[in-house]
Amino acid sequence: MMSGDLDRALAALTIANGAAAMGHRVTVFFTFWGLTVLRRPRRTAARRSLLQAAFCRLLPRGTRRLPLSRLNLAGLGPLLMRRVMRQRNIASVEELLAAAREQGVALVACTTSMEVLGLTREELVDGVELAGVASYLGEADGAAVNLFV
Amino acid sequence: MMSGDLDRALAALTIANGAAAMGHRVTVFFTFWGLTVLRRPRRTAARRSLLQAAFCRLLPRGTRRLPLSRLNLAGLGPLLMRRVMRQRNIASVEELLAAAREQGVALVACTTSMEVLGLTREELVDGVELAGVASYLGEADGAAVNLFV
Amino acid sequence: MMSGDLDRALAALTIANGAAAMGHRVTVFFTFWGLTVLRRPRRTAARRSLLQAAFCRLLPRGTRRLPLSRLNLAGLGPLLMRRVMRQRNIASVEELLAAAREQGVALVACTTSMEVLGLTREELVDGVELAGVASYLGEADGAAVNLFV
Repeated sequence: MMSGDLDRALAALTIANGAAAMGHRVTVFFTFWGLTVLRRPRRTAARRSLLQAAFCRLLPRGTRRLPLSRLNLAGLGPLLMRRVMRQRNIASVEELLAAAREQGVALVACTTSMEVLGLTREELVDGVELAGVASYLGEADGAAVNLFV
Repeated sequence: MMSGDLDRALAALTIANGAAAMGHRVTVFFTFWGLTVLRRPRRTAARRSLLQAAFCRLLPRGTRRLPLSRLNLAGLGPLLMRRVMRQRNIASVEELLAAAREQGVALVACTTSMEVLGLTREELVDGVELAGVASYLGEADGAAVNLFV
Repeated sequence: MMSGDLDRALAALTIANGAAAMGHRVTVFFTFWGLTVLRRPRRTAARRSLLQAAFCRLLPRGTRRLPLSRLNLAGLGPLLMRRVMRQRNIASVEELLAAAREQGVALVACTTSMEVLGLTREELVDGVELAGVASYLGEADGAAVNLFV
C-alpha cells in the first residue's frame, strides 16, 4: 500500500478483509503516502529536522483526511463518496481498518519511508508493526496474492 | 483494473491479450474508475440518488473519453497518443477491448464500486459479468500473474 | 514499472535490490512513463515524427528530473525528499539503479511504449534490453513476486 488515496485504501482494505474472511493470513505493508492511512488524527509532538517537518505538515493525518485519486474536487469528492457509501451501507475506510484488525490482518509500516517522510512511531495508530523491505519480501515470497496498490 | 486512465487501460489490456494469446485463462476485474472503461458512450436513463448523479456526471463515458495519467494536457495528450498509435499501427484501447472479448477474456465489473459511483448495469457495455471481491479473490488465488493496475 | 514518479521508482528499485540481495533473479520491465527513468540526461538527436517530438519534449530526461506522485510542489517536493534522504543516508534512486545493475537485475524497456512515446534506443542508458509484452509474460509467469508499479 504505497498510495495515500481514499479510493485505493478502500480497494486494498476490501481485498485484505475479503481474503482474511476466506481464512487467509493477510499482511498489509504501508509505505510512503500509504503511511498517512495509519497516522493519528491528532497532532503529536515529534522531533523532526526542518526538512522533514515541511513534508509532515503537508501530509494528511489519518483516514478522515485522505483525498481521492480522482475527482477529489478540493475535498468535496471524498465527502460525496463517503455519504453515498453511508446511504448504501458500504463499509467506510475506518470500518474496514477496524475489521482488518479484528480479523488479525497484520498492519506493517515501512521504516525507511517513515524516515523519508519524517513520521515517528508515536504518530501512527496502535497495533502497527514496523519493518523493512526484507520483511515485506519474506511475506510476499510465498503469498498467493500480492498487489502493489 | 482500478484506474480509469487511457495509458493504464492500454497496459492492462495489452497484458491481458498477450496472456490470452499464450493460451492462459484471463480475467480483468474492473473496479472504481476502471469501470469507466466499460461505460457506454451514450447517455442512459438511470435511477440515481442526487449524490450518485453528481459523481456520474463527472465520470467519462467509455474508452473514447479516458484521460492520460500524465501529460493529459486537458485532453490533448490522449489525442496525440492515439494519433501516434494509429500512425504506427499499434492497437487502440478499443481494438484491444474487442480482441480481449474475441479471445474469451472475462470482463468483470465490481458490484460494490458500481453502487459507490452510481453506475447501473445498463450503462455498461454488453458481455460484462458482475461480481464482488470474493469472486476476484477466487480467481486471483490460483493465478500465475495478478496485477493491480 | 509503468509509473515515472520518483517515489514509485524508489519503491520499485528498493524491492528489486532487496530481492536480488536475497538471491532472487530479478527483472524490472519499464513501460510508458517508467521509460523516463532510463532516459539519458543529455539531449540526443533522434528521428521522430512531429507528434512524437511533442511528447518527448515534455517527458523528463532521466532520474534527476522525476516528479513525485504527490507533493511534487512544482519540483520542490523531489528536492526536499532527496535532501532528507541524503541526510539520513538512504540510497537515492541513482544509487539504487547502479546497485541494481551491479547485482545483475535485468532492466528491460518495452518496445511498444518506446514507439508510442517516440523514444529511441540511443536515448536510453546503457545496459538496457529491449523486449515486448510476450517477454514480460514469460518472466512473470514463474515469478514468486510480480508487481505493477
